[in-house]
Amino acid sequence: MTILISITGYDPERWAEIFRRAAPGRQVVTAPAGPADPAIRYAIVWKQPEGLLAGLPNLTAIFSLGAGVDHILRDRTLPDRPVVRIVAEDLTARMSEYVVWRVMDHFRRGFAYRAQQGQKLWHERLQPAAREITVGIMGLGNLGRDAAEKLKVLGFRVAGWSRTERRVDGVDTFAGEAGLGPFLAASDILVVLLPATPETKGILDAKLLSRLKRQTPLGAGPVLINAGRGSLQVEADILAALDAERLSEASLDVFESEPLPAASPLWTHPRVFVTPHAAAVSDPTALVPEILKQIEAFERGEPLRHVVDRQAGY
Amino acid sequence: MTILISITGYDPERWAEIFRRAAPGRQVVTAPAGPADPAIRYAIVWKQPEGLLAGLPNLTAIFSLGAGVDHILRDRTLPDRPVVRIVAEDLTARMSEYVVWRVMDHFRRGFAYRAQQGQKLWHERLQPAAREITVGIMGLGNLGRDAAEKLKVLGFRVAGWSRTERRVDGVDTFAGEAGLGPFLAASDILVVLLPATPETKGILDAKLLSRLKRQTPLGAGPVLINAGRGSLQVEADILAALDAERLSEASLDVFESEPLPAASPLWTHPRVFVTPHAAAVSDPTALVPEILKQIEAFERGEPLRHVVDRQAGY
Repeated sequence: MTILISITGYDPERWAEIFRRAAPGRQVVTAPAGPADPAIRYAIVWKQPEGLLAGLPNLTAIFSLGAGVDHILRDRTLPDRPVVRIVAEDLTARMSEYVVWRVMDHFRRGFAYRAQQGQKLWHERLQPAAREITVGIMGLGNLGRDAAEKLKVLGFRVAGWSRTERRVDGVDTFAGEAGLGPFLAASDILVVLLPATPETKGILDAKLLSRLKRQTPLGAGPVLINAGRGSLQVEADILAALDAERLSEASLDVFESEPLPAASPLWTHPRVFVTPHAAAVSDPTALVPEILKQIEAFERGEPLRHVVDRQAGY
Repeated sequence: MTILISITGYDPERWAEIFRRAAPGRQVVTAPAGPADPAIRYAIVWKQPEGLLAGLPNLTAIFSLGAGVDHILRDRTLPDRPVVRIVAEDLTARMSEYVVWRVMDHFRRGFAYRAQQGQKLWHERLQPAAREITVGIMGLGNLGRDAAEKLKVLGFRVAGWSRTERRVDGVDTFAGEAGLGPFLAASDILVVLLPATPETKGILDAKLLSRLKRQTPLGAGPVLINAGRGSLQVEADILAALDAERLSEASLDVFESEPLPAASPLWTHPRVFVTPHAAAVSDPTALVPEILKQIEAFERGEPLRHVVDRQAGY
């Protein structure tokens, strides 16, 4: 019944400690006792080393510590065990905070007012009402639907796009390749919450950006907000769209290469806001109980929830 | 039945035009035909010139074009006619947008991340969850209650303070001088939406700021957001509190003197965000129908709504 915690880039001991405190009866380790450790029953991972899970004979389930699972699936030796996405209120709420924050900052002209403050310029900017603005959300999973809900409360019109048809109350939904054009043409602020899959790789390219509307009620081109994954982005195309004023502004939390290299022009672009992949941080104290609840239900014979479709990649 | 529009600082003709289009049967003028023009029945004003309304014999009601009425009441010759505050969904929604925008930008560490971007620094900041943060709202009128509602949806704990007792669902309310201390001690982010009255003049002073908590879950002192009126502020005290780290950051939309003078250190303070009294702009196309509805109801014999208590000043 041992739980293996494998985390790259963060401190695994911090997570292990919280697991041990929350489930004192369980063995929690941060490395297997050898490549075929028979004790390991569950793996809880963030970017596990390639091959780590391949030889564990009694592994029954793999849990992701983030909303995405691309960091797990890229392991070509990954054994054929269920991979479980984390769906937790805390993580969803944090992503919606980021989305609301960035939408409000672009919509209420944060870039312009900060520039004006630097010039000691007292000048009121054109400010449309939220009801005149359509926020288009790409990706209508748990994260996209929660963000839509909160943006509606703030008065925005919300449109949504997903690979396969989804209905969301009070949201104009579009699906698939056929729906992409009308969706992009309707969006004043484009929020991207898609997973990283082979299908979404490079989806934010010149072709997609050229299908966005030309002019929004904010008096310029649309805004791009990406909190999905960096692999969605063709950063050269995004920069070109900004410089051609096809995009007015962008907030990017994820990048083709992370940490964002110092040489990237995104760092210094006056209409780009960069955060270090921090839109929705996984908080152990909130997420550990969710994962333990899943494990306990599984051990009572209930099915695992939020199991990833490996074919779709999410 | 003539409507007089008197506006200082904005274009009165733009408003008159929209009134004329919305109520084609009415006379709409931007100046009376003499100081005792008998035709004027209603005055719709923003900072009317002192004395303008004093001699109009048939004036029956005075409407404010903003949420505040201090700009009307400061006229010492103001005749004893009902003064009507505007309460309109559009204005309320815009103020809540500003509040949500500023709360999110401080809460999600906009100042820190913008500074880091300037240094090309990839570094994730400590980020508490919204449920760990109490936003304290001073002023629980229409604006304060709507902002509270929206902040609750985003997951914040909300406290509220008002001069006289008010109950708001899901908000910890405090009232009067006795309630001020515990309210301030509970607030991580202080949002001020009070009206300008003799009682609130200079309320945001060193004494009040010294009663705020020392340390918030954001790892520093509390945040001040003022979208009420500049007369509430003692700006020298706010600057001193910022420099003593008693306040970590501030967003100010209103000032002791407007436009904010170029010599004010607020313009260049690295932890202050300045907007030009633009938190909730009065949009004629949204507000004119509200005012006409009130006038029509009044003419059918119904009482005026949102009449100001001149004693209280709001």
